[in-house]
Amino acid sequence: MRNIKITIEYDGTNYHGWQRQKNTSETVQEKLEEALTTINKKPVDVQGASRTDAGVHAMGQAANFFIDVSIPVERIPPALNRLLPEDIRCVKAEAVPVDFHARHDAQGKKYLYRIYNQGIPSVFIRNYVYYFKKKLDPVIMQQAARSLEGIHDFTSFRAADCTAKTTVRTIHSIEVIDKSPEIWVEVKGDGFLYNMVRIIIGTLIEVSLGKIRVKEVAEILAAKDRRLAGFTAPARGLTLVEVYYEKNCLTKEG
Amino acid sequence: MRNIKITIEYDGTNYHGWQRQKNTSETVQEKLEEALTTINKKPVDVQGASRTDAGVHAMGQAANFFIDVSIPVERIPPALNRLLPEDIRCVKAEAVPVDFHARHDAQGKKYLYRIYNQGIPSVFIRNYVYYFKKKLDPVIMQQAARSLEGIHDFTSFRAADCTAKTTVRTIHSIEVIDKSPEIWVEVKGDGFLYNMVRIIIGTLIEVSLGKIRVKEVAEILAAKDRRLAGFTAPARGLTLVEVYYEKNCLTKEG
Repeated sequence: MRNIKITIEYDGTNYHGWQRQKNTSETVQEKLEEALTTINKKPVDVQGASRTDAGVHAMGQAANFFIDVSIPVERIPPALNRLLPEDIRCVKAEAVPVDFHARHDAQGKKYLYRIYNQGIPSVFIRNYVYYFKKKLDPVIMQQAARSLEGIHDFTSFRAADCTAKTTVRTIHSIEVIDKSPEIWVEVKGDGFLYNMVRIIIGTLIEVSLGKIRVKEVAEILAAKDRRLAGFTAPARGLTLVEVYYEKNCLTKEG
Repeated sequence: MRNIKITIEYDGTNYHGWQRQKNTSETVQEKLEEALTTINKKPVDVQGASRTDAGVHAMGQAANFFIDVSIPVERIPPALNRLLPEDIRCVKAEAVPVDFHARHDAQGKKYLYRIYNQGIPSVFIRNYVYYFKKKLDPVIMQQAARSLEGIHDFTSFRAADCTAKTTVRTIHSIEVIDKSPEIWVEVKGDGFLYNMVRIIIGTLIEVSLGKIRVKEVAEILAAKDRRLAGFTAPARGLTLVEVYYEKNCLTKEG
């Protein structure tokens, strides 16, 4: 029995998120487990690094599973891709030590949020950007984002139904990049609470709109009250870019 | 009653092509006519410049229709986009003379065909490229394409069920561009027979594979026999980029 780590990308548009659920088979985890069970000829459990929400995409989700059959590791991506739906692709597979766990061992994650902020987005990217009509200022958004970098209690930035036991997380960096006609927000941290990235984006947007002042962002963090932060930006604009497993990813520049 | 020309883009993945059909409501023309009929409060017929096939996309399809209500022309795109499905967008509307006809008056069209020729295409572009695994040579494809430029009888390059009365067309240019990991083929002409661009692409691919020699392409044209040309490349790689209405578009550089 070997422990295999895979890197996968998916278009989350048509899925109810990563995690297997009782009421639907349309989750990324279930599609992977079905395909791997076919390859392995007995049931396979897949552990994902990030439980992405419905509609959230991934360019570099990581997962691991145990497999019994003697398929060479480099044959796993093509074998999986023959069985998976077209909107989920395995891009890499590697053998890892038996104690490797994709979620527990993750040292950090990088997310990208794309806001389309000028004219009408092309139909070809419609599912991957959040179309926001009112003009936003990436400079002001970047100023506000600086208050969120570092080690903080992110209680104000988690969904009401978030069940995480601890609420302190480290954000290594938030970079707001003017990619006119888009604004890209790259968020890198050691871990994220439920909806945390999307609430950060909603808050930065509200700062740009003048509903929240730049200096208030630190006060919102300190208040530990979800009602003070901004709205939850839509899932479609969010993509999990990468999961880091090296300790040295934790520098801001990494 | 005003004659309105619109420019539209669409993701053709989920449609049975442009043209209204008896057996399905999932055509781009029907979606536009439904939306325009709602705006106009009585039935509207839409004339499209190009009857794109199922799965073919458009960045610059043109169409025209007559409308009775007094909506300002610049309000037509947002009004349409509120009613249209997300994968069809009206990007422009303009008033045109009463005798303008989007198809009859078109002087030329430009198509783009995208071949993904290295590694696995990202899930985010999966519906817009044709994934071709064997390595192709864009230089040889370009050499073969040169034989197709100019005024020719394209009988060998039309689908068996093509009903066009005349088979002579002018191809102004075919440019094969190395966009590694993709190969782009841009085809510009005064008009195209049914499946003509896709058969040209299949033929260029077969030349690169050595199944057809470069010098044979001219012979295939002369033979007027569909069986001698290459296969019909899949619809998903094809996008209608632009429809030209100016006479001077007919130069190769245009």
